[in-house]
Amino acid sequence: MERVAVIGLGLIGGSLSLDIKEVFGSKIIGIDGSLENAEKALSLGIIDEISTIENLTNVDVVIIATPVDTVSEITKQVLNVISDDTLVFDVGSVKEEICLALENHPKRVNFVAAHPIAGTEFSGPDAAIRNLFRNKINILCDIDKSKKEISDKAFLIFEKLGMKLKFMKPAEHDRHIAYVSHLSHVSSFMLGKTVLEIEKDEQNIFDMAGSGFESTVRLAKSSPSTWTPIFTENKKNLLSSLDEYIKNLVEFRSSLKEGDKDEIFKMMKETNHLKEILNGINKNY
Amino acid sequence: MERVAVIGLGLIGGSLSLDIKEVFGSKIIGIDGSLENAEKALSLGIIDEISTIENLTNVDVVIIATPVDTVSEITKQVLNVISDDTLVFDVGSVKEEICLALENHPKRVNFVAAHPIAGTEFSGPDAAIRNLFRNKINILCDIDKSKKEISDKAFLIFEKLGMKLKFMKPAEHDRHIAYVSHLSHVSSFMLGKTVLEIEKDEQNIFDMAGSGFESTVRLAKSSPSTWTPIFTENKKNLLSSLDEYIKNLVEFRSSLKEGDKDEIFKMMKETNHLKEILNGINKNY
Repeated sequence: MERVAVIGLGLIGGSLSLDIKEVFGSKIIGIDGSLENAEKALSLGIIDEISTIENLTNVDVVIIATPVDTVSEITKQVLNVISDDTLVFDVGSVKEEICLALENHPKRVNFVAAHPIAGTEFSGPDAAIRNLFRNKINILCDIDKSKKEISDKAFLIFEKLGMKLKFMKPAEHDRHIAYVSHLSHVSSFMLGKTVLEIEKDEQNIFDMAGSGFESTVRLAKSSPSTWTPIFTENKKNLLSSLDEYIKNLVEFRSSLKEGDKDEIFKMMKETNHLKEILNGINKNY
Repeated sequence: MERVAVIGLGLIGGSLSLDIKEVFGSKIIGIDGSLENAEKALSLGIIDEISTIENLTNVDVVIIATPVDTVSEITKQVLNVISDDTLVFDVGSVKEEICLALENHPKRVNFVAAHPIAGTEFSGPDAAIRNLFRNKINILCDIDKSKKEISDKAFLIFEKLGMKLKFMKPAEHDRHIAYVSHLSHVSSFMLGKTVLEIEKDEQNIFDMAGSGFESTVRLAKSSPSTWTPIFTENKKNLLSSLDEYIKNLVEFRSSLKEGDKDEIFKMMKETNHLKEILNGINKNY
């Protein structure tokens, strides 16, 4: 793990760089479409040098942490130049498209499709932090399509960074993540949009935000550059989850309009079960 | 402030008791519809004795912290027994109905309609904590309908507990709070319901919750006994806010279906403005 390249120096790429540098003492080669980002990452000590994809002929690992609609194309370019023992992995939030796109690439065995479930609502090199991945789940898709030396190298990195591994088929991953993650983001963004449209007086939003609004719209601070491609790449699954969500809101609205307290109470009581499910998070980790 | 009665010994009533006891050295007289709750509050040291409304003839303050659909009736009973210099205030999340219901009561001048914007997703006497109200906004409605000695006494308590006061008409309060608080709760509860319905495998919810789901559904852990009456008491405003929210979700869905990346990006970018508004929370307090 002497030389590790990171393409995309935002929250995830930058945080991976910091951890890998600390844990393995690696030299980090940074690549970013924005020279400003790359230089900021260099000045923050996140990376050790700035380079380009063509120069990645002699590195141990390449991490692709760019917006999901660019991952397939960039990964192909990377696989075309790397050596036989270079591990390439991505960290994108949508997995079916990338796995399909690389299926027949001669260097497919060098690639691992990963999705570490970690992040904050912040973005860019400034948002990079140490230990972002400690005790977090990392979902690996189609791991049987990587050769053993490559998956072993990936497991070693993920383990040393404190991640817990979970294995899924790409389609299965995209379906689950649409409901549990992507829908949460849409829900939060649209809540924020609704309140901004109605509340012309921003002081009111500020004053009343402690009433539950602040945590519920936390995700609406997320980067549109990151999330627009995630939503469109996972369109099919996100549309289904949105349909279910809108259906439930319309049903709630109808119960409220009728003043059906029993039904409203029942819907909330059943949903309270999430308490036990989410408490597991603190219990097990 | 020697003798302070608190009716409704849950998160808000219990937390007020703890602070008032600490700050004013008051003796706290506790009343609750559930004897179990009252005894728990007594054993936790939140209150000093258990009593009933008929006995409140000789107290300095009565706080009404029961579910909002019971506040008007209980406040009337309290106003009927108290002395001329007793302050009575409620802490409910809906204000128009209560202000209307008490408008013509002969002791209306002893009443202050308050809504401290504070809370957690927990409930019951066990949930009571110290300093819950420090640096929080407390919205007072129709304060000109209280006599001066009474509003002065209320201001003193609120100030010593660290609250910042804001004044509104009841209808205005209910309209704003529907958008900023009540809609957040519905949004969160329905998100939780949608995910629970689809994800039969709870381990998946647990594993993926770090991806944004956990914070967005925090409010879905809230008490149905507290929130059912809030929603139904503020029905008119909540229906309007739900209509706006559903409209935005349907529009987002349509942009997603068409693959209109520019429009999706724009909606999110504009909503990002919440960052600056909410940052004020940390800046000013």
